[in-house]
Amino acid sequence: MSPANRSYHHGHLRHQLLSTARQLLDERGPSALTLREVARRAGVAAPSAYHHFANLDALAATLAEQGFAELAAALETAPTDERGRLAPTGEAYITWARANPELYRLMFGEGFRTAIEASNGVHASRGRAHALLVTGLQRRLPDRDLPAATLLAWSLVHGLTMLLIDNQSEPGAASLIPDVFRLAARGIPLGPASSFGTEPGA
Amino acid sequence: MSPANRSYHHGHLRHQLLSTARQLLDERGPSALTLREVARRAGVAAPSAYHHFANLDALAATLAEQGFAELAAALETAPTDERGRLAPTGEAYITWARANPELYRLMFGEGFRTAIEASNGVHASRGRAHALLVTGLQRRLPDRDLPAATLLAWSLVHGLTMLLIDNQSEPGAASLIPDVFRLAARGIPLGPASSFGTEPGA
Repeated sequence: MSPANRSYHHGHLRHQLLSTARQLLDERGPSALTLREVARRAGVAAPSAYHHFANLDALAATLAEQGFAELAAALETAPTDERGRLAPTGEAYITWARANPELYRLMFGEGFRTAIEASNGVHASRGRAHALLVTGLQRRLPDRDLPAATLLAWSLVHGLTMLLIDNQSEPGAASLIPDVFRLAARGIPLGPASSFGTEPGA
Repeated sequence: MSPANRSYHHGHLRHQLLSTARQLLDERGPSALTLREVARRAGVAAPSAYHHFANLDALAATLAEQGFAELAAALETAPTDERGRLAPTGEAYITWARANPELYRLMFGEGFRTAIEASNGVHASRGRAHALLVTGLQRRLPDRDLPAATLLAWSLVHGLTMLLIDNQSEPGAASLIPDVFRLAARGIPLGPASSFGTEPGA
């Protein structure tokens, strides 16, 4: 094999292992991921898989990094409508995550918490998705509110996503998503300065 | 042993197995839970453990049910302050979850998704915690807004909790929690009818 062919072959097998791992993840969740099973499904010997990924953690972190990149791509295609881009971007986020629940869980650490936290690739990729999600907040809020507003937006979409993909919400909850974003914009009486009153005890 | 003693012994061992399992969970997470290890740590033979819990799923569901009951108890002790009770209850929720991260993950299905979803005990216990969390919304919002407001409040505290316990948020994020609730009350520009403007593209 010429060096060029070998390089092509090398990249091709890596790609194939990743797509096989992604399929296994989608089918059976993070806890079912093993390098041995990925190699078996890809039709290669286990040592070949270890040649591409030092261990299962490395494979899982690469999948998570790719997941955040896919999520960012989905956010970029969110439409700008009469509500601006923030609510449509939030809806695009939830739509993507609901279509990829096992990958979404892996991205947030399930089964591989230490590896995901330690991966610079995941941090960078997540940062890009995160930035797209909150684009626009800085045009609308004073600087002093940005850290809390960013955390609020990220918490809201993440929590809504997790409740939906874990079936922890009431039946029909998904149809409420546009209303949830409308209420988040208007404010709900969780604290002071609400137009709904703040009588103690409520 | 008299029947009364046997009954005492039966209840005592069950309690002991649960507290041993809880300790194992707190130390090593949902993926480390096995009935065999719980029995070993409790100093009993594995068949004795199976006498109390048909399988690991049954033990995990019982732990999750107890977790939601503990969470509900923590919410009940939240103070009523000048902001009413909703923000303090949200803060009590997050404080409890951060002190019990592995149990919190289990309660929301990690490692035992099917068993948690199928457990009537978990549903009932979660329903009580959920009701405490959103107490007060119905006094402040018109009926038509309640389903979305409830989902919003639950998503926000769940998402904030998960980002914090999974170390997915920026350093110092925990100190922003009161500001996040203040902004949620005031509204953030995720949708229409916001006082911050809705220029497209933002």
